[in-house]
Amino acid sequence: MRLDSLTPFYVMQLLKEAQHYTNVIHLEIGQPDLPPSIKVTEALQKAIQDQRFSYTQTEGLYELRALIAKHYKLRYNLSIDPDHILLTPGSSGAFLLAYALTLDIAQRLAIADPGYPSYKNFAAMLGIKPRFIEVSPSTNYCITPDQLQNTHALQISNPANPTGTIYSKELLQALAQKCDKEGIWLISDELYHGLTYEEQPACAKEFSHRAIIISGFSKYFCMPGFRLGWIIVPPELLDNAIKLAQNIFLSAPTLSQYAALQAFDYEYLDSITQTFKKRRDYLYEALQNYFDIPIKPQGAFYIWADISRYSKDSFAFAKYLLQQIQVAVTPSIDFSKNNQFLRFSFTQPLPKLKEALNRFASLLG
Amino acid sequence: MRLDSLTPFYVMQLLKEAQHYTNVIHLEIGQPDLPPSIKVTEALQKAIQDQRFSYTQTEGLYELRALIAKHYKLRYNLSIDPDHILLTPGSSGAFLLAYALTLDIAQRLAIADPGYPSYKNFAAMLGIKPRFIEVSPSTNYCITPDQLQNTHALQISNPANPTGTIYSKELLQALAQKCDKEGIWLISDELYHGLTYEEQPACAKEFSHRAIIISGFSKYFCMPGFRLGWIIVPPELLDNAIKLAQNIFLSAPTLSQYAALQAFDYEYLDSITQTFKKRRDYLYEALQNYFDIPIKPQGAFYIWADISRYSKDSFAFAKYLLQQIQVAVTPSIDFSKNNQFLRFSFTQPLPKLKEALNRFASLLG
Repeated sequence: MRLDSLTPFYVMQLLKEAQHYTNVIHLEIGQPDLPPSIKVTEALQKAIQDQRFSYTQTEGLYELRALIAKHYKLRYNLSIDPDHILLTPGSSGAFLLAYALTLDIAQRLAIADPGYPSYKNFAAMLGIKPRFIEVSPSTNYCITPDQLQNTHALQISNPANPTGTIYSKELLQALAQKCDKEGIWLISDELYHGLTYEEQPACAKEFSHRAIIISGFSKYFCMPGFRLGWIIVPPELLDNAIKLAQNIFLSAPTLSQYAALQAFDYEYLDSITQTFKKRRDYLYEALQNYFDIPIKPQGAFYIWADISRYSKDSFAFAKYLLQQIQVAVTPSIDFSKNNQFLRFSFTQPLPKLKEALNRFASLLG
Repeated sequence: MRLDSLTPFYVMQLLKEAQHYTNVIHLEIGQPDLPPSIKVTEALQKAIQDQRFSYTQTEGLYELRALIAKHYKLRYNLSIDPDHILLTPGSSGAFLLAYALTLDIAQRLAIADPGYPSYKNFAAMLGIKPRFIEVSPSTNYCITPDQLQNTHALQISNPANPTGTIYSKELLQALAQKCDKEGIWLISDELYHGLTYEEQPACAKEFSHRAIIISGFSKYFCMPGFRLGWIIVPPELLDNAIKLAQNIFLSAPTLSQYAALQAFDYEYLDSITQTFKKRRDYLYEALQNYFDIPIKPQGAFYIWADISRYSKDSFAFAKYLLQQIQVAVTPSIDFSKNNQFLRFSFTQPLPKLKEALNRFASLLG
């Protein structure tokens, strides 16, 4: 049956249990704790005054798509036609479009393990077969061209959730070339772009006109509850993309679109990146006292840590941490067949992270 | 291929052409022209002050789901567990859940012709086979139990878009019993409940515990751009519904959920219904001077009119009306194999409707 392979977010079971405690430190949360720019709030207030309560056109406000195009020019020196950008209900909506547009029933989508679980669950819903590609620290948790066989599309995450790793420009180019050569659709999840702490990753569009780019306002722009994402669609898929979006979304949330017109507040966004960088630097250093961390994350707000010295069961160990020291983390079973890792999010202020480390010291020190 | 049968909204082509004119009267629009209650706007402003910018839990705010449950008690004397209600990104999100939860690849979904085109396009996306059931004025454009063969699920619309017709309580009960007896999932689109002008339709849940109910805030509550719907899920589907929603939506837009906490402003809602009723009464009466209208609509904000005395091609005739008198309407090809109808929306104030009728008089009188 369609949903037989559907997996829950196991961390939700832990969060139910976490409600029994009043002093939980949440290192499992996959959204920023920081608010969007004050300009976004102001734009929202204006949109309410202007009674922006109707549907927009399916593609979304042209003005916002033009601003997104401008952002690609500025960041990657890419010229994107605003008409090739569609606004979607969260980046979730963009994945639904991307998979439905490129993959027929029973065709294969290559996905990294570890990787974001929704990829495979979208695939299950759409009757697509996932093809898991094991990635390891030896390739910075990246898929390499030689691993691409028997697939119609490739989903990459750059930076990746849960590992925080980035594709080098060379590797991304090699992958894009391989995909183009073999007629594989390259779908690049770039939702965490902007939240990178050394090098800026490339956009897959720099190396392939056929690449499908997915991003949104939930992470870097700190607007998760606004549910606004975007997809850049190659011209040959555009007609179907618009037809499909008309039918399955109508349009993305209107107030969110008007609010996002002010989201490109780069001074504020730089401060967001700096805040997360400080947290990353602290948490990466401090956690190494208790866990093996194969790779220092270069982006996103996650640290992927090996717990095999303590346990072979990430869920049980996460439960143990919750019960013993009231620290909530995400077990690796949510992301991988490998059950000996935890994902730590640094979506908490530094003092909270430090308090969590004190608790680790008391239990594991 | 998956999307081979995907159809566009043909009316969008007309709307592109409509941009060449400055004086178009839009009788094709499928959303209310009236704003939501002022209390909704106030709730929105408070939500912004309170910085409600994060994801909610996947099911949506419990408080809002409890209010929806209360609404079912008040309107239908139904006791619904708020935990069986999930908030979705528009009612669109609810259809996606309903179909993915109940229908495997290549299984059949029965749909009325004429009917809302997204049903069949959702089905196409999910690899589900539509089974069109022709409905006619003889049954008030309703599907009857004897028409149900070889299907795994039945989609009904009550009131229906594009015909504005309603299932009698007796017919709905008979359909629900037949579905329960044959193990057919009954999916009831009740998005236009509240916008009914004589009798209040029943909720399918009154007659079947297994019925799946879909509704939302876009029509009666006048909140289309908020993209907020809901689904009532039978207990046996609930686990999968939550797992799926976690993966494919994360959550419905947060500000919209807080705003909707004040949407059940019944005094205001009654005024909305009355406004649409006056328009329906006027337009139904007046249009009959030029078109054959098989059934007076009992709900929604549409009139389904036969144009066979003028044309056998609804798209060409709609184009003719736009070019000659700048009135935009929706051709029946968007809803039906029958190409000799038009859908008129009364989502315009009375003076605009009267002006449209003057134009019809000048052209067709």
